[in-house]
Amino acid sequence: MVPHLITALAGPLAELERTVLNASPQIERWFRMQWQDNPPPFYSSVDVRNAGYKIAPVDTNLYPGGFNNLAPDTLPLAIMAATGAVEQHCADARSLLLIPENHTRNQFYLQNVLRLQQILKQSGLNVRLGSLNPEVTEATPLDAGNGQSLTVEPLQREGDRIVLPGFRPCIVLLNNDLSAGLPDILKGLSPNQNLLPPLHAGWAVRRKSHHFAAYDRAVGEFAQFIDIDPWLINPYFAAVRGVNFHEREGEQQLADAVSDVLKRIQAKYTEYGITEQPFVIAKADAGTYGMGIMKVTSPEEMVGLNRKARNKMSVVKEGLQVSEVLVQEGVPTIEQVDGGSAEPVVYMIDRHVVGGFYRINAARGRDENLNAPGMTFKPLPFAAPCNTPDCSDAVDAGVNRFYTYGVIGRLAALAASLELEATRPRASAAAPALA
Amino acid sequence: MVPHLITALAGPLAELERTVLNASPQIERWFRMQWQDNPPPFYSSVDVRNAGYKIAPVDTNLYPGGFNNLAPDTLPLAIMAATGAVEQHCADARSLLLIPENHTRNQFYLQNVLRLQQILKQSGLNVRLGSLNPEVTEATPLDAGNGQSLTVEPLQREGDRIVLPGFRPCIVLLNNDLSAGLPDILKGLSPNQNLLPPLHAGWAVRRKSHHFAAYDRAVGEFAQFIDIDPWLINPYFAAVRGVNFHEREGEQQLADAVSDVLKRIQAKYTEYGITEQPFVIAKADAGTYGMGIMKVTSPEEMVGLNRKARNKMSVVKEGLQVSEVLVQEGVPTIEQVDGGSAEPVVYMIDRHVVGGFYRINAARGRDENLNAPGMTFKPLPFAAPCNTPDCSDAVDAGVNRFYTYGVIGRLAALAASLELEATRPRASAAAPALA
Repeated sequence: MVPHLITALAGPLAELERTVLNASPQIERWFRMQWQDNPPPFYSSVDVRNAGYKIAPVDTNLYPGGFNNLAPDTLPLAIMAATGAVEQHCADARSLLLIPENHTRNQFYLQNVLRLQQILKQSGLNVRLGSLNPEVTEATPLDAGNGQSLTVEPLQREGDRIVLPGFRPCIVLLNNDLSAGLPDILKGLSPNQNLLPPLHAGWAVRRKSHHFAAYDRAVGEFAQFIDIDPWLINPYFAAVRGVNFHEREGEQQLADAVSDVLKRIQAKYTEYGITEQPFVIAKADAGTYGMGIMKVTSPEEMVGLNRKARNKMSVVKEGLQVSEVLVQEGVPTIEQVDGGSAEPVVYMIDRHVVGGFYRINAARGRDENLNAPGMTFKPLPFAAPCNTPDCSDAVDAGVNRFYTYGVIGRLAALAASLELEATRPRASAAAPALA
Repeated sequence: MVPHLITALAGPLAELERTVLNASPQIERWFRMQWQDNPPPFYSSVDVRNAGYKIAPVDTNLYPGGFNNLAPDTLPLAIMAATGAVEQHCADARSLLLIPENHTRNQFYLQNVLRLQQILKQSGLNVRLGSLNPEVTEATPLDAGNGQSLTVEPLQREGDRIVLPGFRPCIVLLNNDLSAGLPDILKGLSPNQNLLPPLHAGWAVRRKSHHFAAYDRAVGEFAQFIDIDPWLINPYFAAVRGVNFHEREGEQQLADAVSDVLKRIQAKYTEYGITEQPFVIAKADAGTYGMGIMKVTSPEEMVGLNRKARNKMSVVKEGLQVSEVLVQEGVPTIEQVDGGSAEPVVYMIDRHVVGGFYRINAARGRDENLNAPGMTFKPLPFAAPCNTPDCSDAVDAGVNRFYTYGVIGRLAALAASLELEATRPRASAAAPALA
């Protein structure tokens, strides 16, 4: 199920959206069955791009920030979904330890943490915040800038559990993506202390290419089931390893991967009569925050990058060096909000879509990364009451469009479940199954 | 968890409400644990009365109509909750057969059925409507009067299953309270076909006194847990059997029961310094629709009833004769909406509160039954966005007040679970355990 949120795009529904809408009860049952075998991540957010001819996820975040950007009236949905998630992970949980990011001065982020804390508290949990930041050595109040404050406390290890003074949580929820590496204090925790998501979901280990390989599998079955070309909801990609931008190692492999992906896109564009120029997005295979990303329209662009471009591509959050690169089909967005290019971001808790917002960037084109300075956020509001037959088609279209976004978001969450299962460290295997 | 709905009452919170709010995380956990052992009914609605000094349920409906009276923006909550309920009763369900009431000319009721159908469809089910009405002998379209229509079909029995042509549902959901008796076509169904709620929840079998006995148990534990006097959320009651209003049998027993309950109320009024006059509501122990109900302030009123009163009390819906009477503590309402006495009705699907509305009756006093001709309904809207510190206290109070109503509603749903388990027909026992 997907909340009835209003998208900015009010035009007629494309054929893909009609197909998805017509199959809605079957799709909901399909997801219900999928979650039986593949438990969803505790939470996730998915950047979706709607090109008109295709709708696809381009990034799946397993440590979603931005809950503060969801419309306040969607809060009860989040609480209900979190209640279900808690019930599944630790039915008798009294308390939950939330581990936020270390950047304690970003007030927007702190508002996200406050919102998460509120959601979890109303799900019936005592929530305290434990910090991985070595600078946090005592309980520290932080000002969220909206009249509210929160307190982070230094994590303590007690045997095979992490605790705070007088607080032994049954669930430890990471809202820190572990870009800086897997902290020792989180390793080897008791199975009785549920660490969510699991350690190997952190960017120190996780790879986007594993995620999109799992997405291929999820979409393969789904597309067959509703009888559509999987490309309509799936971006092509290739992964290149052993890259060193500073030393110019791996340039030719990158160019080859770009060439390959561009050719595959062009073949589809020709098949569907799409006259746009194909492009790809090259980005770090690990990491987040919109760093290390470039748009590429020909293989030659990957060879002989200038120093500035190489610097930009070589480092992501927490100074992590980039040696693996994802070359992903570029999906232009046809969405415009307040005069800027916009992409919907879909939020899920457990198996449920709980809201969404637009990421808007007036300084960027419809074929560029919008997760960049200048971006703003606009919550998607609930659809207005619409129980009478004279309800306009345009509103209907907006409501229905968000349904498709919610399906794409959930396919990505399902892919994350498959991905985490496939990459789960096993005592007997050195390499993840999807490598 | 409880949606943030705005109640009409905007005054300061009473001590009881403060206690409940302060214990909110513990209460949510308490419910989470209760539902593990006592699965909630598929759906329920509860009439709640707030007297200022006490807040109590006065009726619990296991076949709720009125889903059409919930605010449209609460629909996603209902869908999410229904998705969870379906998952628990029949995870791979494709289809659900909904059995509505027989009164096919009540367009408000048909709008309720349409809303339910929409909720269930968006939970991933094919939904068709099967009628118990013998007059429905073929697929029959019915006009819901809001531009929409629905089609009811005659039920068919095929071995130990009920079916419609080309339709073998995994779940059969009753929205018909079976006041007319248990239909043969529903008896002895295969355990693979989930009949919800179970047959013995129908008014042909169910007794309000069993429900309120179970509510005593639920409240006993809850009140101890949050350390309040259980009376603050529990109406006193007594049940009288062997009554025949026409023959004037059982009058004295009724008068004795009224006397007993009035005395117990007066003792509590004295304890709390409440200066109101105690009263009780005498109503049929089985049945619904606000029939067979009278307000009583002294035992003498039950003796020598005039013909009109006896006629009124002796028959409920479907002409069912009343021989068992519930004498329930009257709980006046302090709620006023649009100048009329009002009582909140809380709706639940599975373990979740999914919305509510006010039942308003300008022709009735604050100490009378409002479920009577002249009543109107007003959905409780979601609380307006309230993320800034200058948010008014009044709005906060309204939001918080609904939390308590949602707790009372869920306690009644928990009681229904205990009640249905205690009254479940057992091969070896002739009488229900609570009798």
